This record gives sequence, structure tokens and C-alpha cells, in this order.
Amino acid sequence: MIRVAIIGASGYTGAESVEIILRHSQAELVYLSALPEECGPVDEVFPRLKGRCSLPVEPLDFDKLRGTADVALCCLPHKVSMEFVPKLLDAGLKVIDFSADYRLKDTSVYEKFYEVKHTDTANLKKAVYGLPELFREQIKGADLIANPGCYPTGAILAMAPLLKEGLVQTDSIIVNAVTGVSGAGRNPTSKFHFPNMNENIFAYGIGSHRHMPEMEQVASEIAGTDVKILFQPHTGSFDRGILSTVYCQPKAKVSIEKLLKLYRDFYGAEPFVQICEGAPAVKDVAGTNYCHIFPTCVKGRVVIFSAIDNLVKGASGQAIQNMNILFDLEETLGLA
Amino acid sequence: MIRVAIIGASGYTGAESVEIILRHSQAELVYLSALPEECGPVDEVFPRLKGRCSLPVEPLDFDKLRGTADVALCCLPHKVSMEFVPKLLDAGLKVIDFSADYRLKDTSVYEKFYEVKHTDTANLKKAVYGLPELFREQIKGADLIANPGCYPTGAILAMAPLLKEGLVQTDSIIVNAVTGVSGAGRNPTSKFHFPNMNENIFAYGIGSHRHMPEMEQVASEIAGTDVKILFQPHTGSFDRGILSTVYCQPKAKVSIEKLLKLYRDFYGAEPFVQICEGAPAVKDVAGTNYCHIFPTCVKGRVVIFSAIDNLVKGASGQAIQNMNILFDLEETLGLA
Amino acid sequence: MIRVAIIGASGYTGAESVEIILRHSQAELVYLSALPEECGPVDEVFPRLKGRCSLPVEPLDFDKLRGTADVALCCLPHKVSMEFVPKLLDAGLKVIDFSADYRLKDTSVYEKFYEVKHTDTANLKKAVYGLPELFREQIKGADLIANPGCYPTGAILAMAPLLKEGLVQTDSIIVNAVTGVSGAGRNPTSKFHFPNMNENIFAYGIGSHRHMPEMEQVASEIAGTDVKILFQPHTGSFDRGILSTVYCQPKAKVSIEKLLKLYRDFYGAEPFVQICEGAPAVKDVAGTNYCHIFPTCVKGRVVIFSAIDNLVKGASGQAIQNMNILFDLEETLGLA
Amino acid sequence: MIRVAIIGASGYTGAESVEIILRHSQAELVYLSALPEECGPVDEVFPRLKGRCSLPVEPLDFDKLRGTADVALCCLPHKVSMEFVPKLLDAGLKVIDFSADYRLKDTSVYEKFYEVKHTDTANLKKAVYGLPELFREQIKGADLIANPGCYPTGAILAMAPLLKEGLVQTDSIIVNAVTGVSGAGRNPTSKFHFPNMNENIFAYGIGSHRHMPEMEQVASEIAGTDVKILFQPHTGSFDRGILSTVYCQPKAKVSIEKLLKLYRDFYGAEPFVQICEGAPAVKDVAGTNYCHIFPTCVKGRVVIFSAIDNLVKGASGQAIQNMNILFDLEETLGLA
Repeated sequence: MIRVAIIGASGYTGAESVEIILRHSQAELVYLSALPEECGPVDEVFPRLKGRCSLPVEPLDFDKLRGTADVALCCLPHKVSMEFVPKLLDAGLKVIDFSADYRLKDTSVYEKFYEVKHTDTANLKKAVYGLPELFREQIKGADLIANPGCYPTGAILAMAPLLKEGLVQTDSIIVNAVTGVSGAGRNPTSKFHFPNMNENIFAYGIGSHRHMPEMEQVASEIAGTDVKILFQPHTGSFDRGILSTVYCQPKAKVSIEKLLKLYRDFYGAEPFVQICEGAPAVKDVAGTNYCHIFPTCVKGRVVIFSAIDNLVKGASGQAIQNMNILFDLEETLGLA
Repeated sequence: MIRVAIIGASGYTGAESVEIILRHSQAELVYLSALPEECGPVDEVFPRLKGRCSLPVEPLDFDKLRGTADVALCCLPHKVSMEFVPKLLDAGLKVIDFSADYRLKDTSVYEKFYEVKHTDTANLKKAVYGLPELFREQIKGADLIANPGCYPTGAILAMAPLLKEGLVQTDSIIVNAVTGVSGAGRNPTSKFHFPNMNENIFAYGIGSHRHMPEMEQVASEIAGTDVKILFQPHTGSFDRGILSTVYCQPKAKVSIEKLLKLYRDFYGAEPFVQICEGAPAVKDVAGTNYCHIFPTCVKGRVVIFSAIDNLVKGASGQAIQNMNILFDLEETLGLA
Repeated sequence: MIRVAIIGASGYTGAESVEIILRHSQAELVYLSALPEECGPVDEVFPRLKGRCSLPVEPLDFDKLRGTADVALCCLPHKVSMEFVPKLLDAGLKVIDFSADYRLKDTSVYEKFYEVKHTDTANLKKAVYGLPELFREQIKGADLIANPGCYPTGAILAMAPLLKEGLVQTDSIIVNAVTGVSGAGRNPTSKFHFPNMNENIFAYGIGSHRHMPEMEQVASEIAGTDVKILFQPHTGSFDRGILSTVYCQPKAKVSIEKLLKLYRDFYGAEPFVQICEGAPAVKDVAGTNYCHIFPTCVKGRVVIFSAIDNLVKGASGQAIQNMNILFDLEETLGLA
Repeated sequence: MIRVAIIGASGYTGAESVEIILRHSQAELVYLSALPEECGPVDEVFPRLKGRCSLPVEPLDFDKLRGTADVALCCLPHKVSMEFVPKLLDAGLKVIDFSADYRLKDTSVYEKFYEVKHTDTANLKKAVYGLPELFREQIKGADLIANPGCYPTGAILAMAPLLKEGLVQTDSIIVNAVTGVSGAGRNPTSKFHFPNMNENIFAYGIGSHRHMPEMEQVASEIAGTDVKILFQPHTGSFDRGILSTVYCQPKAKVSIEKLLKLYRDFYGAEPFVQICEGAPAVKDVAGTNYCHIFPTCVKGRVVIFSAIDNLVKGASGQAIQNMNILFDLEETLGLA
């Protein structure tokens, strides 16, 4: 049994990770930590877990972790993560980090978008970007996985075959995405107060969302050339899911049939990416680790639709998929 | 034109009052006040009002109010209201107060449930409970109206004919109600954070909700005898509305036909109370000042269902209905 | 008082029109018609209207209409409308038609997208496209108004200043829009069954939505040149509203300040179009006839966000705005 | 591996059963059937299952079932079930039936509430009511399990300790419950059309819901005396869950402490029933097989709140809990 510690267990991605590990046949929870004010018996922190888990949520203690856990799912926010990850690695754990701290390879970009100096460039260099469908081989031997952002997961999976094959212009891609509200985290604010958010949809992060440089970095790596992306996120009145609608300009005319074949070939062996023949719906992937993709052509453009659950394939599920790879388990364990 | 000041304009009932007055042909907004930190151009405080209202929201200034407004809709919370209402009255305004401060005639009950000493008993004595369908005559000449609570409005309208006629036992009434989340006010909290509240329903205020003594006081006054009510509120994942399901034990067997006739006769002349022949739905009254009621008999009990919009008939609409009465306008103005 | 008949009153736009006319100080409902199986007392057809309207909903009778009504709001679906509109005109009424039958000037486009032969080309030629902000002068003298589609209303208002000024390339505009479910009409289907639609969002009408040629026709007329639009609609889990996110390629670099000034000048005198300084939210326009627009620049593109209520500015509210213009009433009556 | 056939797989409880079995380590799906018009590749019938299950959904063929499956989860509606269940039993399968056909022991009650003659009284006599927390021993040896209704599951678990101990009057129990819309099944209707159901709550089945006699039968069996229940269901605008608020009159005064102890003792060993110290929320049990219960005293009454997921503990989860018991597996398998 893989022994799993969840660091920052009191947020939505922490809670989702706990629930997935509870269903995992070859991994077990051994340690849950959170900020002191969010600690306590697990069923007070998460009423959903009453009777399902007997671990307490406790303040982080590296000594306790050493030798107790094999892997840490580190669900801390950016900046906090890079303080703790080096110590988790020092304590001998593999680390799958949910924050952005180990995703952006260029620290100047990181520092511009996250407005804080990067303090752990040594580990940043070694970190592997944990999108298994594209970087599975590197993940296998890694000690530190930078678990991808939710939006980049949906958008990159939607674009990867086109980028890899060099079929689209790389200076005019638009990613229009809508996320469920859980993507905004657990902290209550006026914007996400139920009577304000319910029955609503709006854009945010206009021109400045932090997942834009992450998408561009990964897309550029796949394409082997510099890719520019106009990424526009929106928040809609639902709990979970991201629907990405990606608009690309093909370099040459491409048929729908060719597109479908390209995507089916590219993802044919992937358990968690499914190519659909019509528009995907977020409800069909909610609560699962699946990504549903429909690529098509409209009026000379290539338009790709992808749907994921932001908390599962966009966070905790993908982390556990990475964990399964790291520990040489069947990749779908706990995620079927 | 009746000149209306809205005190505490930045909350949900304040905003709803503003929108109703904007549609009112014989009343006009002249003054909007809120706490200093919630002041500003009206369309910053309420983006919905952009281009619809040019008043600023400003800190309360009694000197400015005097001579400027004829009536204040006082949308302040309890305890704060009783500090301001005397000054509004002194400034020569009629006052319709949305708080609980002038509803409970017995200050010991007030002090028990609101955990604060009542500081304006002089005006409390003169205040009229503003449920027009039952107390229209007293409202006409009043200077200070205590606008009813949202739950009591729905529950009292559901029970009044039975209480007035003495048809049900007064020691075993149960009011089971479900409110939309706007009833909880505008302040964001973890419970009402969208990802927590959405797709949810739960009970609260078990045995202790502040509207219970209010219901009992008004019900007792109608019945002419002491009425005990077990009131159990719940919050459901919708914006607006209260559905009350009221269970009573009839003193003697009563037929459905007789019940329906009783309710139709009792409310026959009332513009805003409609007796239905089936279960009312909150969506059918949402955004309106109407109360839909269906009384029936089930297994020897009388069960009454009532639906209102908590922000309209349960707050701002009823306040403006009261205003119309106070100023001898057609009672439905602005509320059709 | 303008005497209003609503033809096809039993659908969502019919019901919305009824509610707006009930609040209108210079118009009154005189006639409501629907298909025979949807007729009956108004409060059976619309429980919301119980006690608010005493007209029955009855099968259409042109003889009854003649002399009784001044204007018909014709809320019938396409194809049905063009059978009835000529008779309504013959009966001496002004007609505001909600269907697509009189919007597309090129009958070959109509016939391609609506898959039916156009049978009333005579009136089609005379019909005026009822978007007051752009065609107010033509509306004034018209007998037949083609009330715009909901998506075109939001998208055209978002793009008009740019098109008029010739600032953007006209071959690469993308309109990405999300509508609430009321846009799909009142007929229950599996897709819009609550447990399927709730907590969901998906694209539809990929490359083929009927509002695409309507947008292109009107945009081309404004631009004075052929405009091509890639329009991609989505349905989100909310009742009302359309959020349009429009992506354009400027011909020359344009500053955000210049854009804002352009939009403010263009719409400065318009009561129902408001230029915002941040992303608009559909909830801020829900239930109103307003359109909130935010134009900005992102990475060399112009991106415009617009929000309307699909049933109000996108249908019934705009129809009544048109009616007010037709009868020389204050344009905002009933819509404040 | 237990080989599972799902009969009537195309409805919500069928789909939920499929998903649970996919996560079950000692059971496997071997056969999925539905009405001919709802058959096809599994990912067309359930887009959620794309890539997760390769079985087709096919018309029911008893010959194919014989020897292929060990157990049938029969998710057919009432009346249809009693035609098929005898044949499933004849084919040598254990049967867990989701319909009401084998729940009501008194056929005259069945025939009154379901308005159809019972055609399989032989098996009705042998059927065991599948509420494991109360009838585990009988379930163990059964061939045919009548899986309980969703409302009775929540209500009976809430009341059982009180009934067993004889602490409350049995002639005045009120069960006020609110279900999510999935409880109404997969068939689209006007009432559950998203724009009608969203933001709504209403009562239905007033005095006549079919789960009322089921509750009374089971409650009476537990109490050892005739129990009368006034059961009032409501539908709220959420997908999943039932919140039951149960009002009882205690025979003698009872303290909250004693109540809590009673419930904790009664359910102490039960994995799926959790006694809470505050009001349970449906969201905390959604997607799980858990029942959260909070018993308390209010103004001389005993009030019990219980929350379940109607599709899991109220249907498919409980069926699989029963299956685990039938086949002597760990009771929580697939349901953790």
C-alpha cells in the first residue's frame, strides 16, 4: 500500500484527494494536515467524511511525516508551496504539488504573474509537469511533480494533437473557457456568495489570468515553437467542470474526418481522454478523471471543445493518476 | 410624488426597494444611505442600477433628510434600527422599519431572542405591525410601521383564517418552511459560499429562530388566545422565495370544500393573496408581491401551503404596500 | 392607452410580454391567444398571473382582433408566424413579430437555415429590423417590426461601434456566447430536463446556428461591407441571460481608452445600453431591458463582453421598446 | 467476482448502479438491458461511460442471462417489474428489485396506491424488504430483495430507534421531506423542464404519495403496532438528495442527551448511518451511501433530521449494499 499524506487537506482539492484515496485499493491515507485553525477531527473539517476516515487533520509536522508517508499530495496555494515542498522532499517523500510554484520554468514569468520572488529554483529545475498524456515518461522517474493547472489541463489536451502536428497557426489561438465555482476555492467572497453567483456567468482575469503563461509554456514545448494564446476564463453558476472552446486557424484546409482521425490516433491508448462525435458536456465528466474532446471545423477554423472536472482531472484526480505512474501502479486505480 | 429615502440601501432588501420605487408612478427616490464603506455612485454599489438611478449612496445625514423625504424605508439590521428610527421620526418622516426592533411587543421576549436591551420602548409601543391583510386599519394612521419578518408573513397569511375562526388547536401547530438564500443577507459566509450552498438543503435555527416568537405573538393576537408554534426553517439552493408547509390539528373535522370557502371569503378582497387549488410554487411568486395559498386536509390534519418571495412580499414589496396605504395611494402601485 | 394583443401567449416570451404590459402605464392587454390546447383561464396557463390579469387565453380569432387591438406582439415560432402576420396586418394592427420570418432579407438564406419556403415575401420587404439603438428612425414609421433574435441583439450591440467605424477586420470575428435555458423555449426535452441540464454547460448549433446569418446580415449592413462571423453558442445552467464574448482583430492598434470613448460616444444617448468598466454579469441585467457592455484590448485583439436578458432585451422587452417607439411613447415606459 | 446484470439500465438508478459496480472490486457488469428504443452502445446511452464500459445496452433476453449473471439489479418501474422478476428468478438469478412491486405486503394497499392488480403474489410473500440496518438477517438468505423506496429509507432510518423503543406516539408522526429532481426519473415533463424547475420548490403528492403506505407498513413492523404517518413530499431545485424532517410527539419527556445516546447505540455498528450533532445537509451525503441523522427536542416534540442521496442510499447504493450482504461480501465494498 502506498502511504499518502495530504498537505493542505482542508481545501476543495484536499477534500477531493481524500475521497479518491479512500476508494483506492493500493493507497491509503496516513496523514492529513492543514493550517492550525482548520485542524480537528476529520468529520468536523469535512462532514462528508463522517464515519469514512478516522485520521485527524493536524498541523504539519515534518518529523511525523518522515518514514510515515511515501508521497505527499501538496494542496497548498502558490508561494506557500515552495516553502514546504523542499522540506517534504528532504523528509524523503515524493511530492505532487498542486500549486503553480513548480510549473513555470521561467522564473521571470512566474514572478510577473504571481508577484512574488521564486525561492526554490533548485527544485523548480527538477520538477516534471504532470500531464501524463504528454509527459508520462518524465513523470515515471520524478521526485517532484508539478500538477497542472485546471484550465491548462483542459486546453492543452484540446490543442496538443494540432500543435504536435504543426497544423495550426501558433499566433492566433483563442481559448474561451468557463469554469464551475469550485475553481475559485473555498474562501467565501461577495462574488461567490450564493445569491450573487447563482444564475450568473461573467468573465474575469481579462488578459491577465495566471494560467495563460502556463498554457503558452506547455503549448510551446509541444509545438516546438513559440505559441501565443489569448485565454479568456469565465465563471458559471455550477459547481464543477471546465468547458474549453478553442479556436484555431489551420495552416491549410483540414477536413473534419482528418481531424477526428488525428485525435483518435493521438489519444487512442489514453484511458482518460475520450474523443466524442459531438459537443461534450461538463456534467458527463463531473466527478470523473475523464476529458471529453470534440474537434471540428467551422467556417475555415478548427474549433475544439473539451470538458473536464476541474477538481478531478484538473487537480486531485490527475494528481493521483500521477501518483499511480510514480509508483508503477495501474494508472486508472482509484479513478475508474 | 411621495419622496422616499432608503436607509441601509446596500443590502438585498435595500436594493429590492430601490428597484420597486423606480417602477412606482407616484413615488420617487430622493435619498439612499448606507454605511460609509458601502457608499459611492449607485452603479458601483448596485451594478444592476447603472443608467437607472443617478442618486449616490451616501452616509446617513439626518439634516439632509429633514424636509427632503416623506418616508424612510429603514432597511437596517436589528439593534441598529432602534438607534436610527427615533431620529428619522424626529426628522419628520414616516418610517417603515424592516428590522425586528419594533415587531415584538414584549421586550423581554425581544431581549431573549435578540440578546440586546431594547432602547426605544416609547416608539415600540406606537409601532404598528405592517401586515396589511390583517392590520390595514391600524396601518393607515401610523407613523412607524414594523414591517413583518419574511417567515411570519408567509406563515401568518397561511394560518390567519383558521386562527380567526378558531378552527384549529393552538398548541400543536407546526410551520415547516424553506427559504431561498437571499434570506440570509448579503454577507458572504462559508455556509452560503456557492460551492457549499449550491445543490444543498439543510435545517437551521432549530428551536431557536427569532421569527418563532414573532409568529406566536401575531398568531395569538389573531386567535385571541395563546398560540404555540413549532417553527422549523430550512435553507434551500435557490435565490428567492419561502415555501411554508403548515400542519394543524382541527378542533373538529373540516371538509376541504369548507376550508377553501373559508380562505376565499377571508382573502376575497385582497389583491395580493391568491387562493390556489393545488400546491403553490415559489417560482410563481418570485419577483412579485403575491402570496399563493393552498389549504387542504390530509389524514385528519389541516395542511396549508403558502409561497411568497422573501424579498418582496416578505420585505420590500410589503413595505411599499404599507407605504401606499400610509399615503392613501392605490395599494398595488409599483407592485402590479 | 395602447391596446395590445399577444399572439402565442403561452410561451416564455409571451408570458414575459404579458408581465411587462401589466406594468406599462400607457398600454393595456386586450387579447391573449394561443394554440387551442394551451388556452384557458389565464391563471391556469400562467399561475404567476393569478389575480393579476382577468383575460382568458383563447384561440386566435382575427375578427375579434380587428378594432379591438392596436398592436400585436406575435410570439409565434418561425414558419407559423408568416402564416398569421399578413392576417394581423390586414386586420389593421401594427405587428411586432418575434420569429425569424421577417428578419432575413435574403430568402435563399432563410430557406437554407429554416428549411422551409418563405411564403410572405411581400411583407418581408417592408419589415424593419427592430434593434432601436441602430434602426430607430426606420422603426418609427413601420407597420411590421421583425424583433431581433436574442443572440444577435447581444452580439450586434457589442460590435456595432467597431463595425460602424471600420476599426476591425470583418473576416475573422468570433462570437462566443452562453445562453440561459429559457432561450430553448418551453417545450420539455431530455437535454433540458432538470437533472440533465442542471450543473451543466455545453456547446450546440456548431457551425449551423440560425442566428449566425442574422448576425452577419445586420453586421454587414452596419459595416457597409460583407462581415463573416464565427458564432458559437453554448447553453449554461441558468434561467435567463446571454453573455457574449466577442473577439475581433483590429485593423490598427487601438488603445483601451479610445475604445471606451468610442463606445460611450456611440451609446451615450441610449437609455438601455450601458458601457461598463469591467466584465458585465448576466445577473445584473436579468429581468431588465438593459445591455451591459465592456470593450477592451487583450494581446492585440479587441475583446467585447456584453450581457442581456434573453427574454427581455433579447425578446419581449425589446418588442415593447419597439412598441413604445411605434406609438410615439416614451421609449422606456414599462421597462424602467 | 459476482456477475451483475442491470435490467432497466437506461434510467437514473440504472446508470448509478453501473457506476457503482464499475468501482466495485468483487463484482463486474456482465449484462445491461433496456427497452429496445433505449438500447445501443453504452456510451451513446450514457455519454458519462465513454471509455469506461464496453458492454452494449441490449433488449432483455432471459436465455442470455441464464448462467451469465449471478444477480440482477432490476431497475424497472412498478408493474413492469412484477412481469420480469419471476423470469429472472426462474433464470437462476438473485434479484434485487428497485420497484414498489415487492414492498407492500398487503396487495389491497398495493392495488389502491398503484392502481393495478398484483400479478406475482407468490414471490411477493418471499420478498425481503432490503433495508439492511433493520432487516440484515432476513436479507442474507433471500432470493428476492425489495429494495426500499427513497423516501422510506430516509424516514424509516430517522424514526426507527424511537419506534423500536416505543418512545413516541404512533398516531401523529409527520414526515416532511424534500427531494432532488432526479427522484422524478429521467422522463422529461413540463414541471421538471429546467426553466420551470430551477429556482423552485413545491409540494406534491399531497395526502396520496405511494411511499406513505410503505413507510407505515415498515414503521408498524418496527414498532410492533399500527403507525400512522402524515408524509408530505416536496421537490426542490437540486439534483440529488432527500432531506427528511420528522416531527413526533414523545410519550414522555425525553432529553436531548438521551435521544442522542439512543441513536448512537442503535446505529453504533452501522457503517452507513452516522449520528450528527447538528442539522445534516444533503450535499454532505450526495454521491455517497451514507445517511446522516440528527435527533433533537424542540418545544416538547422530538424532531429528527435525516439526509440521504436518493439515488445512492435511496436506490442503487442500497441495492449494492444488499448485494454485498447476499453474497457474503464486505458490506461496504464499492460504497466506501
